[in-house]
Amino acid sequence: MQVSDARLIDGGGAVELSLGGARHRFHALWLRDNAQDAATRSAGNGQRLITILDIPADTRIAEASAAGGTLSLRFEPEGKVIDYDGRWLARHAYDGVARQAPGWTAPGIERWDSRLHNQLPVESWADVTADRRALVRWLAAVRRYGFAVMTDTPTEPGTLCKVAELFGYVRETNYGRHFEVRTEVNPTNLAFTGLGLQAHTDNPYRDPVPTIQVLYCLESSAAGGENMVVDGFAAAQRLRAENPEGFDLLANHCARFEYAGEAGVCLTSRRPMIELAPDGELIGIRFNNRSFAAVTDVPFDKMEAYYAAYRRLGEIIDDTAMELTFRLEPGEAFVVDNTRVLHARKGYSGEGARWLQGCYADKDGLRSAYYAMMRAAVLEAAE
Amino acid sequence: MQVSDARLIDGGGAVELSLGGARHRFHALWLRDNAQDAATRSAGNGQRLITILDIPADTRIAEASAAGGTLSLRFEPEGKVIDYDGRWLARHAYDGVARQAPGWTAPGIERWDSRLHNQLPVESWADVTADRRALVRWLAAVRRYGFAVMTDTPTEPGTLCKVAELFGYVRETNYGRHFEVRTEVNPTNLAFTGLGLQAHTDNPYRDPVPTIQVLYCLESSAAGGENMVVDGFAAAQRLRAENPEGFDLLANHCARFEYAGEAGVCLTSRRPMIELAPDGELIGIRFNNRSFAAVTDVPFDKMEAYYAAYRRLGEIIDDTAMELTFRLEPGEAFVVDNTRVLHARKGYSGEGARWLQGCYADKDGLRSAYYAMMRAAVLEAAE
Repeated sequence: MQVSDARLIDGGGAVELSLGGARHRFHALWLRDNAQDAATRSAGNGQRLITILDIPADTRIAEASAAGGTLSLRFEPEGKVIDYDGRWLARHAYDGVARQAPGWTAPGIERWDSRLHNQLPVESWADVTADRRALVRWLAAVRRYGFAVMTDTPTEPGTLCKVAELFGYVRETNYGRHFEVRTEVNPTNLAFTGLGLQAHTDNPYRDPVPTIQVLYCLESSAAGGENMVVDGFAAAQRLRAENPEGFDLLANHCARFEYAGEAGVCLTSRRPMIELAPDGELIGIRFNNRSFAAVTDVPFDKMEAYYAAYRRLGEIIDDTAMELTFRLEPGEAFVVDNTRVLHARKGYSGEGARWLQGCYADKDGLRSAYYAMMRAAVLEAAE
Repeated sequence: MQVSDARLIDGGGAVELSLGGARHRFHALWLRDNAQDAATRSAGNGQRLITILDIPADTRIAEASAAGGTLSLRFEPEGKVIDYDGRWLARHAYDGVARQAPGWTAPGIERWDSRLHNQLPVESWADVTADRRALVRWLAAVRRYGFAVMTDTPTEPGTLCKVAELFGYVRETNYGRHFEVRTEVNPTNLAFTGLGLQAHTDNPYRDPVPTIQVLYCLESSAAGGENMVVDGFAAAQRLRAENPEGFDLLANHCARFEYAGEAGVCLTSRRPMIELAPDGELIGIRFNNRSFAAVTDVPFDKMEAYYAAYRRLGEIIDDTAMELTFRLEPGEAFVVDNTRVLHARKGYSGEGARWLQGCYADKDGLRSAYYAMMRAAVLEAAE
């Protein structure tokens, strides 16, 4: 990335330059704080060695020069000379970044509906354990679509934890390290019955919620019990397109969720159904009829419209045009990003058995594993 | 709670009534959705059996009567008659709830500074394991102050996990189920050196962050290495009192954090330093000079003020008037709410050893254990 035409502005409070032909400005303090020299960042682990208070408040750029792919700056009063790589600057440029409308999603996220049926993201256990590229494809699918299926795993209890350990760590909860999803006599949770379950995210009464869920099939001879997934980000954005005020009501007010269905447990949360970052990025969906508690954080004069938006979101989520249906066979598992993709199951009963196991893990570990494998692949390719 | 003087308003779209003398309105749909009858809620586990789509959109209250502590309603078109307990209604009333200024904190949270020194929340291992009331006191302290100390635990590796298991589950990460905090030759993290560490929250590059951290001392003969804690909520509110625009800049823009200091790990997050719920509740602080990455989500014309606010927050956090200092002796541990309370340590070196262990857990589990014990105590008292 060519760096050229660097000149000081604001009396050295910032620098303006061209990166591959595009003009960008960077502040002196931001540049100084992000210096990569050995006194600022640990060469071994990349962590910053100084605090913001170690940088003089009156830091200014005294001299700037650009040559080839490098920007060189001298900072005063420290007198430090620091070089910056043009590619790094281009990747971290912040000048002129436009604000997007609420509900935008991160790059690389692809919203979907039932039409994804023909390209269900699926890999086999044999492939992902033998070939790192297959594992990267599978993790990439979870990042892109918020779910992926895995086939042909060893059909034995606990295999689901091995699926989670492909990319992270099982998160233990009051339901155990993993839990059995089959009909029980005195179920602590309606999931442990033969009832159909409306599409939902798991454990919205937990804060933080488990960000990844693995569901794994051991027996599947009962009639019914099919699994369904719905893209909550697509549902929220459909709501926003139809009814922006309804979207805002669900995003700007906290709902409440609770679960106290077993001894020693009393989980409660106060979080919105549609969660946005401060700049409007859509980062989470919480939707679960079973644990939705009394909402008390919506003013009286907005409650009717809030409930109308909640109802409409439920209709969108229940719309078969939004859903993917598949039947897990023994040895098959699927993983969902529980902050985004809702899952459901059809009711089942009568002859035969249905036995699934579930466990939770964390999405940041999955993203980390994905990025680290991508980085390693880039480094190998460069060798 | 006396319920009286119930009358329909908005053509049965809502009801107005007196609860212990105060007037309140509740909507028909909200009431119907929150019915506690056996067809709406599972008697066994308390979960809702119906979805919002099972409730007719044109639900209206056809008849309302109040007697003693009970409100009785007939809903049309379903024709259902449902009773509501006046105490439940009073606890969940939402009519006339005033919006608070950004930065408010939940009831029961008490902000503190160095003056808390004389009433450090501390319990002993012998007490919390023998007497549930001592454990409740200790958990209550974590809720109230965001940290608490525990003394006289068995001095042996791994005891910290038993501390976490008093209230929840260890959250395993790339650092292990627990990790060793002592000087290493090739440290993957600056925590594993003798360097002093500025007050920080742990792992802001994780999303979700670990919401509880336990730090536990096995050896402490080195000079230095004292521990410090700072109330991040008190710091944020002090910033807001001095400089509301600076507070807003840190709350309304995402920072970035990253850690890639070991093979196979590449953790990144995009979250604000000061996290607010949609209605302005202060719910999280992320502050860590070592893993603070290049901020790219602040517009150019606000970056200078953003950095000034960041600096000022750092000065407040480093102010000795904000901090509590204590020295952990072998067998002592402390727990912090990692979404709120920052921890630090002074540098150490020379003769002697300092060996701590750390692990992560989740705050929702701690709150759940606390509420469940409180509920059990209330039930026992009522017997």
